[in-house]
Amino acid sequence: MATIEFFFDYGSPASYLAYTQMPGLAQRSGATVVYRPMLLGGVFKATGNQSPINIPAKGAWMMTDLPRFARRYGVPYVRNPHFPINTLNLMRGAIAAEMDGRLIPYSDAMFSAVWADQKRMEDPIVIAEVLRAAGFDPGAMLAAIGRPDVKDRLKAVTEEAIARGVFGAPTFFIGKEMFFGQDRLDFVEEEAKRAA
Amino acid sequence: MATIEFFFDYGSPASYLAYTQMPGLAQRSGATVVYRPMLLGGVFKATGNQSPINIPAKGAWMMTDLPRFARRYGVPYVRNPHFPINTLNLMRGAIAAEMDGRLIPYSDAMFSAVWADQKRMEDPIVIAEVLRAAGFDPGAMLAAIGRPDVKDRLKAVTEEAIARGVFGAPTFFIGKEMFFGQDRLDFVEEEAKRAA
Repeated sequence: MATIEFFFDYGSPASYLAYTQMPGLAQRSGATVVYRPMLLGGVFKATGNQSPINIPAKGAWMMTDLPRFARRYGVPYVRNPHFPINTLNLMRGAIAAEMDGRLIPYSDAMFSAVWADQKRMEDPIVIAEVLRAAGFDPGAMLAAIGRPDVKDRLKAVTEEAIARGVFGAPTFFIGKEMFFGQDRLDFVEEEAKRAA
Repeated sequence: MATIEFFFDYGSPASYLAYTQMPGLAQRSGATVVYRPMLLGGVFKATGNQSPINIPAKGAWMMTDLPRFARRYGVPYVRNPHFPINTLNLMRGAIAAEMDGRLIPYSDAMFSAVWADQKRMEDPIVIAEVLRAAGFDPGAMLAAIGRPDVKDRLKAVTEEAIARGVFGAPTFFIGKEMFFGQDRLDFVEEEAKRAA
């Protein structure tokens, strides 16, 4: 059975689209998905890569391309007017949730808040509301994201990703095979079946 | 019947991969393909975009991604050791060949020389050899690419592409719908069938 490592950041709309497809892909291929929250801003800084929206013509194109994939997948997708956002706190929260065995419900809540519900996820009050609605204790999460072990773990995963060749999100690994982009899910699925 | 405009540059490996797929796509969808040679370097300069190989980690990834698509398509693809190249003369030649009604045989020769045969296509002697082997008169082509109307036409097409939102290659238009990348051929084919 193949293991798919899925590196992502909640601020990446392509990560969101891929995230919605992972359960189906895992079921069809019999693969196990390992969710790896990383800090995309750290990846950009280290690799010299940047968000495509920094190139205005490319950003405009993305605003047609992402909805096309959302329609194909049959999932909600609404451009977030607060995009791009600094996701440091959200990603530290992912690490804290992961340590607590609750990464999936946390990720469901974060991705939906940013890419379906247009929430302003740099605002602590908005983050607290979203967390509470998803069954998390906002105060406990706020305390957790300040913990050194949480900060260090996010940094370590991000550095691991960079060392393995990651330059953007989402990025998938099956063994040493790397796939970049939610538009490579068909290749990921093929490889997962092959490696099974 | 839909018309697909296909903007490309011979120096772009993704343009080459797309080019190999256009006849089949046109046949399946009943669409007409209009081949639009442009200068990708001019597009990059105007839009602030750049070749993905300028980001080392992204360039390394492309060296696995492009062969994956070549295998899927069943077409030859060999990384060109002279890449990236300045394609100004090659693209002016495309305009001259187009004016002469010979854009397809010219493009077949150029794309194969760069992306299957690893030719050094900045070298005038190599270009002349490739042209002669494809049935072109190298001397006549050399004269043609110096003509003001040829230079102006390439510039005009490139400016038109930029004005319409192009930031890379290949880019496709079906009416006002724009698609970027050889990895969007499935969307292009869907739209061509829809618009038929």
